Amino acid sequence: MAIWDDVIPKEDLEMFAKSKFGGEREYGKKPAIVVVDMTYGFVDDAYPLGCSKMGWPAVHAIKTLLDKGRDKGIPVFFTRGEHSRTPTERHRWKHHAWAEPSALDPKEHQIVEEIKPKSDEVVITKIFPSAFFGTNLASMLIFHNVDTVLVTGMVTSGCVRASVVDAFSYNLIVVIPEECVGDRGIVSHKVSLFDMHMKYADVAPLTKIVSYLDGIR
Amino acid sequence: MAIWDDVIPKEDLEMFAKSKFGGEREYGKKPAIVVVDMTYGFVDDAYPLGCSKMGWPAVHAIKTLLDKGRDKGIPVFFTRGEHSRTPTERHRWKHHAWAEPSALDPKEHQIVEEIKPKSDEVVITKIFPSAFFGTNLASMLIFHNVDTVLVTGMVTSGCVRASVVDAFSYNLIVVIPEECVGDRGIVSHKVSLFDMHMKYADVAPLTKIVSYLDGIR
Amino acid sequence: MAIWDDVIPKEDLEMFAKSKFGGEREYGKKPAIVVVDMTYGFVDDAYPLGCSKMGWPAVHAIKTLLDKGRDKGIPVFFTRGEHSRTPTERHRWKHHAWAEPSALDPKEHQIVEEIKPKSDEVVITKIFPSAFFGTNLASMLIFHNVDTVLVTGMVTSGCVRASVVDAFSYNLIVVIPEECVGDRGIVSHKVSLFDMHMKYADVAPLTKIVSYLDGIR
Amino acid sequence: MAIWDDVIPKEDLEMFAKSKFGGEREYGKKPAIVVVDMTYGFVDDAYPLGCSKMGWPAVHAIKTLLDKGRDKGIPVFFTRGEHSRTPTERHRWKHHAWAEPSALDPKEHQIVEEIKPKSDEVVITKIFPSAFFGTNLASMLIFHNVDTVLVTGMVTSGCVRASVVDAFSYNLIVVIPEECVGDRGIVSHKVSLFDMHMKYADVAPLTKIVSYLDGIR
Repeated sequence: MAIWDDVIPKEDLEMFAKSKFGGEREYGKKPAIVVVDMTYGFVDDAYPLGCSKMGWPAVHAIKTLLDKGRDKGIPVFFTRGEHSRTPTERHRWKHHAWAEPSALDPKEHQIVEEIKPKSDEVVITKIFPSAFFGTNLASMLIFHNVDTVLVTGMVTSGCVRASVVDAFSYNLIVVIPEECVGDRGIVSHKVSLFDMHMKYADVAPLTKIVSYLDGIR
Repeated sequence: MAIWDDVIPKEDLEMFAKSKFGGEREYGKKPAIVVVDMTYGFVDDAYPLGCSKMGWPAVHAIKTLLDKGRDKGIPVFFTRGEHSRTPTERHRWKHHAWAEPSALDPKEHQIVEEIKPKSDEVVITKIFPSAFFGTNLASMLIFHNVDTVLVTGMVTSGCVRASVVDAFSYNLIVVIPEECVGDRGIVSHKVSLFDMHMKYADVAPLTKIVSYLDGIR
Repeated sequence: MAIWDDVIPKEDLEMFAKSKFGGEREYGKKPAIVVVDMTYGFVDDAYPLGCSKMGWPAVHAIKTLLDKGRDKGIPVFFTRGEHSRTPTERHRWKHHAWAEPSALDPKEHQIVEEIKPKSDEVVITKIFPSAFFGTNLASMLIFHNVDTVLVTGMVTSGCVRASVVDAFSYNLIVVIPEECVGDRGIVSHKVSLFDMHMKYADVAPLTKIVSYLDGIR
Repeated sequence: MAIWDDVIPKEDLEMFAKSKFGGEREYGKKPAIVVVDMTYGFVDDAYPLGCSKMGWPAVHAIKTLLDKGRDKGIPVFFTRGEHSRTPTERHRWKHHAWAEPSALDPKEHQIVEEIKPKSDEVVITKIFPSAFFGTNLASMLIFHNVDTVLVTGMVTSGCVRASVVDAFSYNLIVVIPEECVGDRGIVSHKVSLFDMHMKYADVAPLTKIVSYLDGIR
């Protein structure tokens, strides 16, 4: 049973089978963990962009992954947004929540306490969906000779998906621990997981990925 | 009525409304048309990656858009794939159709005759999902001072969506003529249109976009 | 008389003439000013990376350019470095001054008071030579429909040159006001100006560029 | 004795020493060879962009490097230009040789026979100076887990230097075999080697690099 089974109809599955999409692959030898936008503004539904139902469970799943990854000395990268002072920095995002008073709350772009970065872990400030676009993430992954990225965070159909597509385009092996991502829309969440698993990444249960990390080095 | 109404549940719509996503925006003054991967391999279901149901109708809709755009002197950019000779060039795509005999058919990566590029239109060869990744598309759009891209082609949830996210990240106004895109999965198609319309782009009927082009210059 | 006349021999000039390099071009209609790394660490020779001889005169020339540009409402972008907390962020720079005590002085990466950014001007934090690499500068220039960048700052043969090559590669018209750039090496400075003027950019006197800005809008 | 000793004055060397630039570094475990633009158009001075004095000797030095690298199974990447059919593809290069009849000679963009790519080696078509800009080179290097690039080809102060700066910015260790690069200007050549050795790369004799390759795997 896959999480998308109740939303993807049989005829769609047949088209993907015809193209021989999907399946499982072997992961690499040098993984890194990327934690996308796990800030109060996304995790907590007190904020306009918040998506509470999947946010806190994802925090706890990411904590499990981070505990194992840090134990194994695997590099960890966080991303977060920042307040835009000017229209130039606000860009062309379609949502209209910028003008809200909450957009000035410093906690909005703070990574939640439960999984806060350690002092030697990199926090990337980004504005656009992908953790790679306009950032040094690709360079930092090359610095560590990373071949596999475990992409976690929020939201599945937004910044997570954009980061997965770019990681794939940089020829990294991309793995998505299913419990470690969340979205404000349940259908967007499930269909993005399906789309990514078909073409760009392996969606897998957290237990499988923790076992994989156990075998590293 | 939006095309995604039958797949996005009410509670998801409410979450997006809370974040004030979606809506319509004004288009810019300098549009360009981007036609993604409208090759026989994607359009025609004789090919392993083909997705016939939406392919040919998209061809005809794109032809209408191109007729108007060329009449107005708007720059047009096509993308297409190419056969990979080596594993290095094959990258990490998950589908397994590379090894098929059809993967050597030169017609697979040929843009369909009905909308073939004119001699002064640029055809970009690409390997990865986005029309921008590893290509000069951004530079060529800047050369023409483009502020708005009309993104068409296949598949909606794959190369079209990746190109839309990158165009958005380059701060271009992104418009998707709904009839001019297609996918092998109907749910992936509808949900990607929903996701993109909520955050990155305006999904609009072809007639509206043809009217917009009529008013250019 | 060009500034490089005393370092480029006649036979080199002949080779460039054979390839028909160099000359002057028309500038565009939508300029932006980019000020690269005019921080105390580079401008002031109390710092290990400082290059005092050309630093302060460049500050004054840039001030003249900014006064005119701001008067005309032209967008202005600054870059500056930042202290690296970890080896991951320190990257592969060859110089060994990272370990110096001065590398912890907060003033090192502060833009000099005389030309400090206004509250509505964007300051880009960067690590690598080019103002474009791993930053959103290209996106922000597209946001403003910029077609011409006036590149200033330090050092000519380092971050200025890398930024010029990237601006050129994004198909922007690149102009370098000669008095507004400086370097720690006089030969590196002159030869980089020559190389850039031959192929990628127009090196021109500040007075010419101020006249050009006068004619904008 | 360094090749730049006769062009860089003592006071410039002192400024670089003050900043602790330069020196030698250890190379990595996974090298790749990049051969930039070794086409007849650049190597042979019958062509407008040709720079004959350094072209053919560089061909022979690159052949020595390729023989060793291929023997060791090291990935090799070539770049070459291509004829531009339209102004859009011609971009903003400053030289005026585009309109020459020679610009239609197919041999101009053909890699010279003596070092022609093997059937399993990748040839990247590029338009801009850097072998990375608008290409998939970074992705292909990641595919092979490369940590060190040996950059060769022409011209030192143009496409070689732009490629070196980008390779450095991707956090690769960059090595330039001195005999394997050439330029149409002798001063541009020497000063670019100096600038790159100070900050971004190790300029080293071919014999040292061949020894290094001998020790790989």
